[in-house]
Amino acid sequence: MVKAIEWKEDRVLILDQRALPLEVRYIECNDYLAVVEAIRNLSIRGAPAIGIAAAMGVALAASQQKASYFAGFYRVMKKVMDAMIATRPTAVNIEWAMKRMDSLLLANSGLGTQELKEMLIEEALKIHREDVEANRKIGQYGASIIKEGYGILTHCNAGALATGGYGTATAPMLVAKEQGKRFKVFADETRPVLQGARLTAWELMQCGIDVTLITDNSAGWLMNRGMINLAIVGTDRTTINGDVANKIGTYTLAVLCKEHGIPFYVAAPTSSIDFAMSKGEDIAIEQRSPEEVTTIQGKRIAPEGVKALNYAFDVTPAQYVTAFLTEKGIFKPQELQNLAWL
Amino acid sequence: MVKAIEWKEDRVLILDQRALPLEVRYIECNDYLAVVEAIRNLSIRGAPAIGIAAAMGVALAASQQKASYFAGFYRVMKKVMDAMIATRPTAVNIEWAMKRMDSLLLANSGLGTQELKEMLIEEALKIHREDVEANRKIGQYGASIIKEGYGILTHCNAGALATGGYGTATAPMLVAKEQGKRFKVFADETRPVLQGARLTAWELMQCGIDVTLITDNSAGWLMNRGMINLAIVGTDRTTINGDVANKIGTYTLAVLCKEHGIPFYVAAPTSSIDFAMSKGEDIAIEQRSPEEVTTIQGKRIAPEGVKALNYAFDVTPAQYVTAFLTEKGIFKPQELQNLAWL
Repeated sequence: MVKAIEWKEDRVLILDQRALPLEVRYIECNDYLAVVEAIRNLSIRGAPAIGIAAAMGVALAASQQKASYFAGFYRVMKKVMDAMIATRPTAVNIEWAMKRMDSLLLANSGLGTQELKEMLIEEALKIHREDVEANRKIGQYGASIIKEGYGILTHCNAGALATGGYGTATAPMLVAKEQGKRFKVFADETRPVLQGARLTAWELMQCGIDVTLITDNSAGWLMNRGMINLAIVGTDRTTINGDVANKIGTYTLAVLCKEHGIPFYVAAPTSSIDFAMSKGEDIAIEQRSPEEVTTIQGKRIAPEGVKALNYAFDVTPAQYVTAFLTEKGIFKPQELQNLAWL
Repeated sequence: MVKAIEWKEDRVLILDQRALPLEVRYIECNDYLAVVEAIRNLSIRGAPAIGIAAAMGVALAASQQKASYFAGFYRVMKKVMDAMIATRPTAVNIEWAMKRMDSLLLANSGLGTQELKEMLIEEALKIHREDVEANRKIGQYGASIIKEGYGILTHCNAGALATGGYGTATAPMLVAKEQGKRFKVFADETRPVLQGARLTAWELMQCGIDVTLITDNSAGWLMNRGMINLAIVGTDRTTINGDVANKIGTYTLAVLCKEHGIPFYVAAPTSSIDFAMSKGEDIAIEQRSPEEVTTIQGKRIAPEGVKALNYAFDVTPAQYVTAFLTEKGIFKPQELQNLAWL
């Protein structure tokens, strides 16, 4: 499986997901600003993956630092961390990863800068390793919800490319396949950026999973026809009450699932749960350029001068969520608050 | 306003809607086969418009006939009408228009072929005129549901381009605007063929209506945010119990409207009501090429070899429909059956 991101000592390699599936090309980030740009322009995307990228960006900036005293070192690192947090507001993972790096720095202010550099690099790699490990566990817990012959709907890309590896929403599918279960996946294409068509379909095909691409507006009809048995999506930020920010269109799917009595699962590593935020209304929803709507891969599809709205995310209230698949087990929305103490 | 179709004695001019909004170009149909092809490849689309096109295609074929006896004349015309009906299965309007032409022929089998030719041409023009007239009345009745400051959602294109002129779902908007009401329209882009982005947005901008383009998967979130006060869509075939076949995604919108307590209206000239069909389950749902999903305007957006499902329509059960806007007034689903006698 192709890796979304890799640490290479003096640089960070980022798979340019904008070019997929037509082309597999990597961006060489030689400084942290290149990482900032790669996150901002969606070369790398997916809440866990951009958390890892931000951490590696900080590690890269640290390794290139000249300051020999903590105060100077920390001042620069703080600027880098703030730049990372400013890239994309909705996913919690960048904040979460930056908080880990920041706490580590502050807890070790007595050490020399060379030790701090090594420590930050190790922490970034650890964030990466832990993400893959969490996803495997999500897969092990989550595989139980997939039954023989099921039709499974997923939205956007919460796969290996959105994470350090293995994926969140896709992890239960990978494990269920290993267990020999047969099932079908329906992937929403996920306009405007088409992560479902370009990334999820591609990933699942590579894993030998039976995947069928559909337009976003087909999901309701497939449910009506009895073709969907459950939905699994990822999350960019879940608040402690169980409200789920995820790719635009997730809320619509949740409403459709409710109407058809179909279970709606959210694959959520605890790194994507914001234990400091009480409800979904407090989540900043990123609005992106209208051009993502009026053009598709550079090709204009709407009249010149037309207005367009481009909410990149929506918030699904907890009441629509059957359960969360986490690396610590499967939890109902009202149980999430206990996870902070696990 | 640009016309979707025009009768020119020796030929039929059809606006090639596949090229809109980037280019305004017409297809000259010199024989009925060119009309068949234009309907099949979506150069002209929209239930009322393809009914008119089919009638004009029949008139064109009639005008070019050599047969001097009724039996021979009728045999050829029957073949032409069957070819029209075979183009697209879901919309009732082609069948409806062909039935009008066929009945006219059979009722006048004693006349000479020259008179039959003139009669068929006149009938095609009458179908066109009646459609525009019906749409104006839909607009007059329908304008009453649009209140000052409303946000109105529409799907696909049920505008002037989908009809002989004026549109069905757009007619109430045009009249409400004439009445000086201010309101906003949100147009779903409507994948895969993007009729909302390419046609509805373009039409409404030309009419000076405040229109904002959104991705199909944004509608739920806008409703959740309180931005939508009502939805108006068209229909390709409505059965006598009030079930509505319309562009894929319509059913999803109807479910969303129900969840948010938003009225869901269907603009339905009686030509689109199938008084011979009792329920939506009997409607043939056209499946089109997967390439409409895996490519956008010729550009590949999904992996080579990926499976894709492309239902062109879905069926919204009557229970989701607030009311039908027709040229004879506004009717609840259970009142539709009375319309057959009006």
